[in-house]
Amino acid sequence: MKKIIILGGDGFCGWPTALHLSAQGHKVLIVDNLSRRNIDNELEVNSLTPIQPMGTRLKVWEAVSGNKIGFYNFDVSKNYHRLLTLIKEFQPDAMIHFAEQRAAPYSMKSSWHKRYTVDNNLNATNNILAAIVESGLDVHIVHLGTMGVYGYGTAGMKIPEGYLKVKVDTDDGQTLEQEILYPANPGSIYHMTKTQDQLMFAYYNKNDQVRITDLHQGIVWGTQTKETRQDERLINRFDYDGDYGTVLNRFLMQAAVNYPLTVHGTGGQTRAFIHIQDTVRCIEIALNNPPAKGERVKIYNQMTETHRVRDLAKLVAKLTHAKIDFIPNPRNEADENELYVANDRFLGHGLKPLTLEDTLLEEVLEVSKRYVDRCDLSKIPCVSYWNTERKNSQKTS
Amino acid sequence: MKKIIILGGDGFCGWPTALHLSAQGHKVLIVDNLSRRNIDNELEVNSLTPIQPMGTRLKVWEAVSGNKIGFYNFDVSKNYHRLLTLIKEFQPDAMIHFAEQRAAPYSMKSSWHKRYTVDNNLNATNNILAAIVESGLDVHIVHLGTMGVYGYGTAGMKIPEGYLKVKVDTDDGQTLEQEILYPANPGSIYHMTKTQDQLMFAYYNKNDQVRITDLHQGIVWGTQTKETRQDERLINRFDYDGDYGTVLNRFLMQAAVNYPLTVHGTGGQTRAFIHIQDTVRCIEIALNNPPAKGERVKIYNQMTETHRVRDLAKLVAKLTHAKIDFIPNPRNEADENELYVANDRFLGHGLKPLTLEDTLLEEVLEVSKRYVDRCDLSKIPCVSYWNTERKNSQKTS
Repeated sequence: MKKIIILGGDGFCGWPTALHLSAQGHKVLIVDNLSRRNIDNELEVNSLTPIQPMGTRLKVWEAVSGNKIGFYNFDVSKNYHRLLTLIKEFQPDAMIHFAEQRAAPYSMKSSWHKRYTVDNNLNATNNILAAIVESGLDVHIVHLGTMGVYGYGTAGMKIPEGYLKVKVDTDDGQTLEQEILYPANPGSIYHMTKTQDQLMFAYYNKNDQVRITDLHQGIVWGTQTKETRQDERLINRFDYDGDYGTVLNRFLMQAAVNYPLTVHGTGGQTRAFIHIQDTVRCIEIALNNPPAKGERVKIYNQMTETHRVRDLAKLVAKLTHAKIDFIPNPRNEADENELYVANDRFLGHGLKPLTLEDTLLEEVLEVSKRYVDRCDLSKIPCVSYWNTERKNSQKTS
Repeated sequence: MKKIIILGGDGFCGWPTALHLSAQGHKVLIVDNLSRRNIDNELEVNSLTPIQPMGTRLKVWEAVSGNKIGFYNFDVSKNYHRLLTLIKEFQPDAMIHFAEQRAAPYSMKSSWHKRYTVDNNLNATNNILAAIVESGLDVHIVHLGTMGVYGYGTAGMKIPEGYLKVKVDTDDGQTLEQEILYPANPGSIYHMTKTQDQLMFAYYNKNDQVRITDLHQGIVWGTQTKETRQDERLINRFDYDGDYGTVLNRFLMQAAVNYPLTVHGTGGQTRAFIHIQDTVRCIEIALNNPPAKGERVKIYNQMTETHRVRDLAKLVAKLTHAKIDFIPNPRNEADENELYVANDRFLGHGLKPLTLEDTLLEEVLEVSKRYVDRCDLSKIPCVSYWNTERKNSQKTS
C-alpha cells in the first residue's frame, strides 16, 4: 500500500487512474482545481458522457468499493504553500502529475491560451519539484508527458525511450559517444511546455536527486476502464470537441451522429496510440518500478501501437459506413510522416496491450450512441489555427 | 536608425546597452519594472557605485548626448497587454530582451527564489514572443542568454555556437547526420530557465518565423563603458554581493577593501568572460546582422576569453597583494573543468576583444576604491546553497 497524491485527478486520465490505484488498495488523495470543467464552460461544450461532480464521484466510489479517496480543490500552479503543507502532512510515497493543460489546439487558440498553458504547466511542474525538495521527503514523481516531445520521427530510426545515443567528432579527431535527452521538437505550445518540463526534471534530478518517472504518452482513446464501468456515476469524461477531443474518439463520435469523419490534410500523419485502460495500467507499473535514488529520470514511451490518421478514419468508416471528409489542416505540420517507437520497457514489465482490433472500438461507439443527445454538432470542427497562414488557407479553401 | 525597445534597460547590461545604442543614433525605449533595484532592497545591499534613479539617468543622458530615451515602468512577465500595446504603437524594428532574473545564487536561495525565477523568466520570454506574433509585426528579438546553457564543457571538444553536429546509428544500419541544439546541461535554476527559453525561441521561430538572435554570454566583468563614463550620474551598477556580484568584479572589490579573495572549492572551474564594453558592442553587431525571415535562431557565443577561477584570483592577488582564501563551494558543480569555446561569429563581424591584460582591470579596481565607503563587508560571502548537502558541508568546514 502506497500513499499517492494525484494532481489533476478530475481529468480524463487522472480520474480513471485515481479509481484504479484506489482499487489496488493504495491510499489515494486527489488535488484538482476543476480547470478542465471550467474550460468546458469557457468553450461552451460538455463532456459527451454525463460526468458527476467530484462530491458525487467520491461518494459513489466509496459505496461501490469501500475505499475512500480524499479531495482538495486548489491550483497547484498558484498555491505553492497549500501544496507544500499537504505534502508535509500526508507524506506521500508518490505524486502523479497530471496537473497541466493538455490540448494542443487549445494552447494555440490565442495569445491568452498560449500564455495560460505556459504559465500553468511550467509553474505547476516547478512548484511540485520545489515543494518536494523543500519538504525533505523522498517522493517519487510520475509525470504524464507526451510522445509529442520527440516531434514526428525520423525516417529509418526507432524513437528510443527518452534518451538517444549520439556520436560527436571532436576537434582533436576523436569521436565521443554520449547518451543525451532526445532532441526536442514540439509541434505546439502545449507540446513545448512538456519539453520544458523535461529540462526541469533533469535539473532537479541532477541537483536534488528527486526520483522521477516521465511517461511519454501517445494519443489516448477509449473512455471507460474496469473501475469507471462499475456505476454510471463513475463514468469518465468523453471529449469530442475540436480542442479536447482526441482523433479516434472524435471519429467514433462523428460516426455516431452521422457526421462525416473530418481528416486534417491528407491524414498521412502517423501517430502513437494507447487505450485509457492501458494508461492506468502503465501508471501502476511506473509506480511499482520507481527509479533508485540518484538514478537519472526514467522515461517510458507509453503507447501500444501506431497508425496513420487516414487509416483510422477508414477503419471507423468500415465499421460504421460513415463518410470521410478531407479538410485543410489547421495545424502547422507535415502532411505525411513515418513513426517507429520503442516501447520495450512497459512490455518488459508485463503490459499486454489492448489494440484497435478489440471490441473496445465497439464500446466507444456504444458510448457515443448512448449519449448522442448531449452532442453539440457545432463544437466538432477544430477552429484553433497554428498561425496566420494556416488560418488563411482554411478560409479560402 | 532603428527603433529599439530594451526590456530590462535599467540593469547591469541593459543600461549601458541603452546608452550605447542611443549614442549610435537609434531611437531607444526602455521598459523596466526596476526589479533589480527592488531585489537590492530585499537583499539589503546596494550597488557599490551610486546609480541614479531612472529619471535622473535619462535627463543627464539627454543633456550629455542630445538624445532622448523613453521609459516605461511595467512588468513584462505580468502585464502582457501593456507590452502588446507598446509594440503596436512604437512599431520597433528590434527588441532586446534582458528582462530576466539573472543571478544563479539568487535563483537557489529558497523555494520562493526558484519559483520567482522560473515564473518571471519564462513568462517574460513567452509574453514577448506571443506579443510579437499577435502584433503581426516583423520584430527582431535579441536575447541575452548564457554560456551556462552548455554546462561545463566536454574534454577535447570546442563548444560550438548553439548547434552541435551529431551522428546517430539507425536500426537499419544507416548513420544519420543531424545538427541539433546543443544538449542543455544547466547548473542552476537560473541557467535552467535559459535552456527553457531556447525551446521557446526554437518553437516560435519554427511556427511563426519570428526572427531571433540568442547571445550565449560569458561572465561579464568591468562596470563602465564609453557612454557611462561621460558623467558620474550615468554610472553603471557594480554588484559585489554574494548573489549578484560576478567573480572577477568580486575579487577586485575584495582586494580594494583588503578582504581575502574567496575562491569556491579548488577554483579549478574554467569560465568564459567578456568585458561590459564588449557586451554592448556585441549587441550592436547582433542588431546589425539579424537572421533572415525563416532562418533558424541565430546563436552567438558572446565571450572573448576563458580562465580558471583560481588563475583570476592569482592575477588580482599579484596586482593588489591580496590574500586568497579557498572556501567550500556552495554550488553543486565539479571542482575542475576544461572549457573550449568557439566565438568565430563575433570575431568575423570585426569584434576586437578587450582582454584581462588591458588597463581595464585597473579601472575596475579604481572604481572599487573610489566607492569603498559604500561597501557592506557582510554582504560579500555567498550564502545561497545549491542543496542541503552543500549547505551542510559549508557549516561543518
